[in-house]
This record gives sequence, C-alpha cells and structure tokens, in this order.
Amino acid sequence: MFSIQQRVYYQHTDAGGVVYHATYLDFMEAARTELMLHRGCNLMDFANEDAVIFVVRGIRIDFSRPARLNDGLTVTAEVARVGLASLDFTQRVLRDAADGPREVLVSARIELGCVDAHTWKPARLPRSVRTTLGQIE
Amino acid sequence: MFSIQQRVYYQHTDAGGVVYHATYLDFMEAARTELMLHRGCNLMDFANEDAVIFVVRGIRIDFSRPARLNDGLTVTAEVARVGLASLDFTQRVLRDAADGPREVLVSARIELGCVDAHTWKPARLPRSVRTTLGQIE
Amino acid sequence: MFSIQQRVYYQHTDAGGVVYHATYLDFMEAARTELMLHRGCNLMDFANEDAVIFVVRGIRIDFSRPARLNDGLTVTAEVARVGLASLDFTQRVLRDAADGPREVLVSARIELGCVDAHTWKPARLPRSVRTTLGQIE
Amino acid sequence: MFSIQQRVYYQHTDAGGVVYHATYLDFMEAARTELMLHRGCNLMDFANEDAVIFVVRGIRIDFSRPARLNDGLTVTAEVARVGLASLDFTQRVLRDAADGPREVLVSARIELGCVDAHTWKPARLPRSVRTTLGQIE
Repeated sequence: MFSIQQRVYYQHTDAGGVVYHATYLDFMEAARTELMLHRGCNLMDFANEDAVIFVVRGIRIDFSRPARLNDGLTVTAEVARVGLASLDFTQRVLRDAADGPREVLVSARIELGCVDAHTWKPARLPRSVRTTLGQIE
Repeated sequence: MFSIQQRVYYQHTDAGGVVYHATYLDFMEAARTELMLHRGCNLMDFANEDAVIFVVRGIRIDFSRPARLNDGLTVTAEVARVGLASLDFTQRVLRDAADGPREVLVSARIELGCVDAHTWKPARLPRSVRTTLGQIE
Repeated sequence: MFSIQQRVYYQHTDAGGVVYHATYLDFMEAARTELMLHRGCNLMDFANEDAVIFVVRGIRIDFSRPARLNDGLTVTAEVARVGLASLDFTQRVLRDAADGPREVLVSARIELGCVDAHTWKPARLPRSVRTTLGQIE
Repeated sequence: MFSIQQRVYYQHTDAGGVVYHATYLDFMEAARTELMLHRGCNLMDFANEDAVIFVVRGIRIDFSRPARLNDGLTVTAEVARVGLASLDFTQRVLRDAADGPREVLVSARIELGCVDAHTWKPARLPRSVRTTLGQIE
C-alpha cells in the first residue's frame, strides 16, 4: 500500500501535547498528492490542461490514539472508489515503532469531487486519472 | 442557535482560490469553544481543576459550496448529545449575504471524548458540563 | 490605533503550551486586512479591478512573552510607510488583562509589496490605497 | 550544508496561488528540528531531562520569489551563533530545478532562546547542544 513518512514537529501539535486534530488532514492530503504523482497524475497539469480541480466533498475520520511531538508516522493512501466525477480514498495514520507492529492512530475515508476549475460544477475525471487509478487498486 | 462570525483571510485559503478544507475545522473549533465559554464552561478550568481534557474522537463533514477570500461566514455550534464521557456537536458554516438568506457551505458532526489529562483514558464529563450543556439544548 | 480582538484556541497553540510562533503572523494578517477594509480598501477589488495583489516582502518580528490557551489578545495594525510600490506596517500583539495595563507579547514590522497579479512584478499602489492610507496615519 | 526536501501541497498555498508567507516558517522549523536530530539533539529529551525548551525569540525573514503548488523545495538550516542561552540559525528556501541552479526564494535568521520549561525564564543551553552545535559549524 502506498504511504509517506511524516515526523511530528511543534507546528503540528497543540497545547494538549498531541497532534491537533485537523493536522491529520494535512498529512493525508500530502499522502494523496504523492500517491497521484507516483501514478503519474499531476494536479497542476489537470488544472492547466483539463481545467478541472479536485475538491474535498466529504470526510469521515476517526481518531483512536494521539500522535505526539517527534513521533515518526506512516500515512497511507489507497484509492477506494473511482466514480465518473468522484474519487474516494481510504487513509490511515500509524505510529512507527522501533520494534513491533505499528499502531493505527487515525483512519479516514476522504471523498473528492472533480469540478470545472471555473464554474466549480461537477466534471468528469480526466481520462488519465480513470485509467491510472481505476485499474491498479 | 449559537454562532460566531468569521471573515475569510488569505491564511484560510489555498491555491484553488477557496478555503482549504481543513480550515473549516478550525472555524468549528472556535465556535465550540465560544459556545462553551458562553455557557460558563472554560476548557482551561477543566484541565486544571478536573484534570480532564476534551479530544476530538470522530468527525463527519460535508462540503457543499466553497467559501472565498473576504467572505463573511457564520459558524454555528449546537450540542447534539451529552454522553457519560462524550459530547457531540452539530455545526454548520454559512455564507452571509447582504440581502437574502444565508447559504449553507459546510455541515459537520463533531464527536468529542472527555479523557483524563494524564492517562488519556476516557473520563466522565465534569458535572458542570453535564448540567450546563445537557439541559438547555 | 486600529486593532482587532483575538482569543487563543487550541488550533493556535503547540505542545509547548503556548501560541506557535508563526501563528502570530496569522493574527497580524487578519488585523492588516481589517484595517484596510475599515479604510475602504478591499483586497479582492484590487485583485479584480487593478490586477494587483499585496505580498509580504519582509518581516522583523520579536517575541517577548508567550500567549496561552484562552488568552484574550489585542492585535494592532498601523501604517508605518506608504511607498510607490510598498506598504509597511508596525504591529503588536498584547494580552488583555481584567485589571491593569495590557502586556506587549509580540512586536513586528511587516513590509508588503504591491505586485502585478499576473507577472508578479512590482506595481504602483492603487491610488485609493495611497490616498486613504497615506494621509491618515 | 544541512537541508531537507519539501514539496508544496495545497495546504501550504493561499488564494494568491503561492505559498502563504507564514508557511515558510513551518518549513524552516522542520529543517531546524531535523538538523538537531541529525546531530543527536532530541527536543523531547531536553524537555524531559533538562526541563528546558527552545522558543523563537526573533525572526528576520525576506521573501524574494514565490513558491508555487507542486514545487520541490530545499530548506537549509545552519547554526549561525551558539550563545549561553540562545541559538541562532540562518536558513534559506530554494526551488529545485530539473536543470540548472536552484533559485533562492526566502532567507531568514531565526533566533531561539533556551528557557526553563516551567518558569519560562532564560536557561543555559544543555551541554550537549553547546558541544554538538558549537563546534561543528
């Protein structure tokens, strides 16, 4: 499964001593972008050539355990569904352990919509996205 | 219904020209905090006196329309459920209009857990929270 | 002097228990935007009508004392210099006190440049900005 | 010179289509933390064992050119001065180029203070920091 590594810095934490809840969405967005680039899908090209952008339409996210300063995290991204004008991901954040298995800290399903860059109305996924992401997963 | 006003600044937006999706969670956190303060519940007092803190356990959020730079927003917060060790809110972000009704941009249900500030294990809600938030809504 | 009020929420803090250093720049950006709006200068109008945008060119900022969760802050903004293609502000963040004088927590000078929205090259300040901000301060 | 790589995601940008100014401070904080870890200095250990934390005391930062969505950046960190209770860094953000030299986008000097974790008063740098960072640069 595709994943990126992310260390926790002060900027990610809050006064509770743990990672601020919305920060996990930043980690997940980075992982989705890297997954797409890894598959040859460049968001900037879509904006420039296809005049479409991807927007987050819905999120379901569950926080099981907190990440703390300096933790090493693994952030996964997996395509869950490729629709005509939508693209859903399942994602997880795990804490790396020096020994033993990783702990799942956060799990989410992120629903993206593809929209016209100007009108912001639903648009068909670029063919390259359907081809690349629709088949491999 | 309780609400706060929020203007959209550059810091809230992204290169899509609209408010970045995770930023709405910051707006909602501000509205929840203000609602609790308005009802006499100070998060710092809970941390210091009751040794409990509130953590976000789960979120379901739907993004219908984008907010843009300079928009004036209303962010609502409503207690949806008061549990033994949990507290759920329903929240919305609406765009203010000079004339006519406001548009709903984002809707969410935010599930908080009350945890021991040291062990991070579930803890009963402070009595003042149960009393104050449990009855009025 | 122009100022806005800002309460400190979890989203602004870090694991040190205080406001994260870069967050003060967000507070200051909000105060500058509100000052300009208060004087009739709408950043969106400049972008749309004059095809110019304001970008931060340089910052000198000093952090004297930390702000903490739930603190009530006053964030000031004052035009320090109006140039041909630049606009400098002096800004401060103070902690409000129930009794007695406010404490200065952070002081900064923020240097903005006016640039062409397309080429990103220096552009003259819109006349309305020169007229409005250049005379009053 | 020590550096980290950073790609620009939506979360880093604003409606101007470029990286939001305060975001560069996040990139720089990450580079400083990685430099210190690379030299064997773990911020969490200082907090736990020496009861000191590092806080940002002052920043001078200059923005020359904007970074854009998807840019690959190099963020450098170099120890400029090791004081009794202070630690200064010079840092730069450069845009990576497929061919040819990198462009400098942002330059900064970041002044950290070492403070007692409880009283927040100036404290001597831990010996390990003085030894490790004071000699190599």
